[in-house]
Amino acid sequence: MDFAKLASKYKTPLYIYDFDYISAQFNSLKEAFHARKSLICYAVKANSNLSVLKLLGRLGAGCDCVSIGEIKRALFAGIAKYKIIFSGVGKDDSEIEFALRSDILMINIESEAELKRVEKIAEILNKTARISIRVNPNVDAKTHPYISTGLKKNKFGVDVDTAKKLYIYCKNSPFLEPVGIHCHIGSQILDIAAYSEAAAITAELLRNLKAIEIDIKFFDAGGGLGIRYKDEITIKPYDFAQAVLANLSGTDVTIVCEPGRFLVGNSGYLLTKVLYEKKNGVKRFVIVDAAMNDLIRPSLYDAYHEIEAVGKSDGAALADVVGPICESGDFLAQDIMLPPLENGDLLVVKSAGAYGFSMSGNYNSRPRAAEVAIEGGKDRLIRDRERFEDLIRLEKEYL
Amino acid sequence: MDFAKLASKYKTPLYIYDFDYISAQFNSLKEAFHARKSLICYAVKANSNLSVLKLLGRLGAGCDCVSIGEIKRALFAGIAKYKIIFSGVGKDDSEIEFALRSDILMINIESEAELKRVEKIAEILNKTARISIRVNPNVDAKTHPYISTGLKKNKFGVDVDTAKKLYIYCKNSPFLEPVGIHCHIGSQILDIAAYSEAAAITAELLRNLKAIEIDIKFFDAGGGLGIRYKDEITIKPYDFAQAVLANLSGTDVTIVCEPGRFLVGNSGYLLTKVLYEKKNGVKRFVIVDAAMNDLIRPSLYDAYHEIEAVGKSDGAALADVVGPICESGDFLAQDIMLPPLENGDLLVVKSAGAYGFSMSGNYNSRPRAAEVAIEGGKDRLIRDRERFEDLIRLEKEYL
Repeated sequence: MDFAKLASKYKTPLYIYDFDYISAQFNSLKEAFHARKSLICYAVKANSNLSVLKLLGRLGAGCDCVSIGEIKRALFAGIAKYKIIFSGVGKDDSEIEFALRSDILMINIESEAELKRVEKIAEILNKTARISIRVNPNVDAKTHPYISTGLKKNKFGVDVDTAKKLYIYCKNSPFLEPVGIHCHIGSQILDIAAYSEAAAITAELLRNLKAIEIDIKFFDAGGGLGIRYKDEITIKPYDFAQAVLANLSGTDVTIVCEPGRFLVGNSGYLLTKVLYEKKNGVKRFVIVDAAMNDLIRPSLYDAYHEIEAVGKSDGAALADVVGPICESGDFLAQDIMLPPLENGDLLVVKSAGAYGFSMSGNYNSRPRAAEVAIEGGKDRLIRDRERFEDLIRLEKEYL
Repeated sequence: MDFAKLASKYKTPLYIYDFDYISAQFNSLKEAFHARKSLICYAVKANSNLSVLKLLGRLGAGCDCVSIGEIKRALFAGIAKYKIIFSGVGKDDSEIEFALRSDILMINIESEAELKRVEKIAEILNKTARISIRVNPNVDAKTHPYISTGLKKNKFGVDVDTAKKLYIYCKNSPFLEPVGIHCHIGSQILDIAAYSEAAAITAELLRNLKAIEIDIKFFDAGGGLGIRYKDEITIKPYDFAQAVLANLSGTDVTIVCEPGRFLVGNSGYLLTKVLYEKKNGVKRFVIVDAAMNDLIRPSLYDAYHEIEAVGKSDGAALADVVGPICESGDFLAQDIMLPPLENGDLLVVKSAGAYGFSMSGNYNSRPRAAEVAIEGGKDRLIRDRERFEDLIRLEKEYL
């Protein structure tokens, strides 16, 4: 990838996504499930750019959405409504109504109170809500506490016994139709045993439901497949598929899964320009024009991103890569090896395609970066760089 | 404050700021320095809403800005250019040029490399850059590591010896005019001794510079005055002023300080609506319609914000207050006492006026909250709620 040319053409900081990589990742996962009916619903929250959604839609993906904003994005990008799932622990009445009116595939229910709200709203609209219930299997995904979601102490899903009770409730309601069963234990998962365990618990419930004539059509195995940021040993799509399928012999369900990071994480690069080098005592700082408002993962999750100097490598020494924001928490990397750098040099922050731009903001009144797609060797803008006018658009008339 | 009425009028989640409180805080600090020439430069990053800036400008405040976006906001809100300071470790060439062309009061220099850039750009523009140098006194502000800035291991400022060297360099440059000296050791500071120590170190350098005929006009004592979130014992404005002034007898400098959180933190409330209550095992969750994209401080800094149920108090029990975002890191409070709540009840998150909206984003494709000012008992919108169209504005044409 010609980062120097991209920096010159689009300026920095800049998000760059390799669309061919995203396609290859999607196809590898789809292929892993080839023996069964399957639907891959991309977890929009990882990277919600409309062009990313359109690309995945073209490949056959559906979307796993966690807000009405994400459902609207999916529809806008051309994703078929019958491939859209609505998940999340806090769905507002207006969001539920929008989902029901849009006639999406199903709503993932996260609590009894929510199920009752959905039923009530479906009744008002005189519709039958297709739902699945998110089972919290109390399985430890062994990931960062902030992105672990399958433990009893987490806010997500309901336990197996509650789930069964809710399915029976659904069966007896004219406004609810249970079509799916769902389990998602976290993000950046590297432990295949956690998937097997969660799938086994969910599959057992599936069979118990079948025995009481609740016939579930979609088995949603969740997402969370980890990727390599540094030296992680990741789960192969085939092994993931087998861990799920091994528990489903003799059933006739469509497998659903919800990858986000797996599809887009390593497709992405955050390109940034060096402003200054600086030494304070023994510490060496490389100050760049990207900051925690662009990529908050290092600061929020203590996440590691590999950073490479474009076209330079000799004489590497330890450095922190920090942004212009006025907090010590504003860093992109700490204690990594980098060659001597000067104003205008470029650094590439890797593995930045997931939870990068989608978590970005305007702290320190910094306009958000532009986003660029690379496909078949060609680059194209997929989101404009914000300008100052964008930052004050909703305020200025009240001044 | 009639939160129910505000929720009904403006919807939730909603940021509300008490402008009378901001005025009172400003006046108390101004008064503390009444015996000296002083300039209070509001730290825009705490809350950069244009109407907040205009209010403070009317009271006589200047602005401490850390990006060109903040300088543009300050100018747009009517702050006089000769009251604007430009700080920050990573100033881009175009930002420096804009600052010089805007003829602001001074640029706070954070490194030798930056000083050379400023000189070069001033030379190109044939201007003289008024500068101050940020001294890093290596004083422990005893605050969260992410917002501590006055230690040698932080990226901020230069040590005293380097500062002196840079001042001498400035004196000999036709394009640099040293007018200020600056020291800022962190944020949410509760320890008066840290201020005294930092001021003493900076004042000594001031006198040393005077001795070599470098006559500094502005002594910038920084900001960082802590506020009460829970039970903190805060520094009184008078004591802060005395800690600074005690070191400046016999000098004729104008005192500058850069409060942010102190002025706006406790003016602000984040109003949110309860969506559901939910129990997972022994854990009780109150799920609300505000989330970490609205207020990231609990998640990022482990920050405490008092939360109160509007019009309810009986039967309080332990609960986590969590948002709809699909991460376990999405919480506003953990293990606090709250009465039984149901869909539609309101919660107020207090002390949310600083680093609340300014750090907010669109994670999970959530539109940002609206902002409302209360002044003299009257409420008025100061920023519109974002809509879906705002989220895709810069993407849709590339689809």
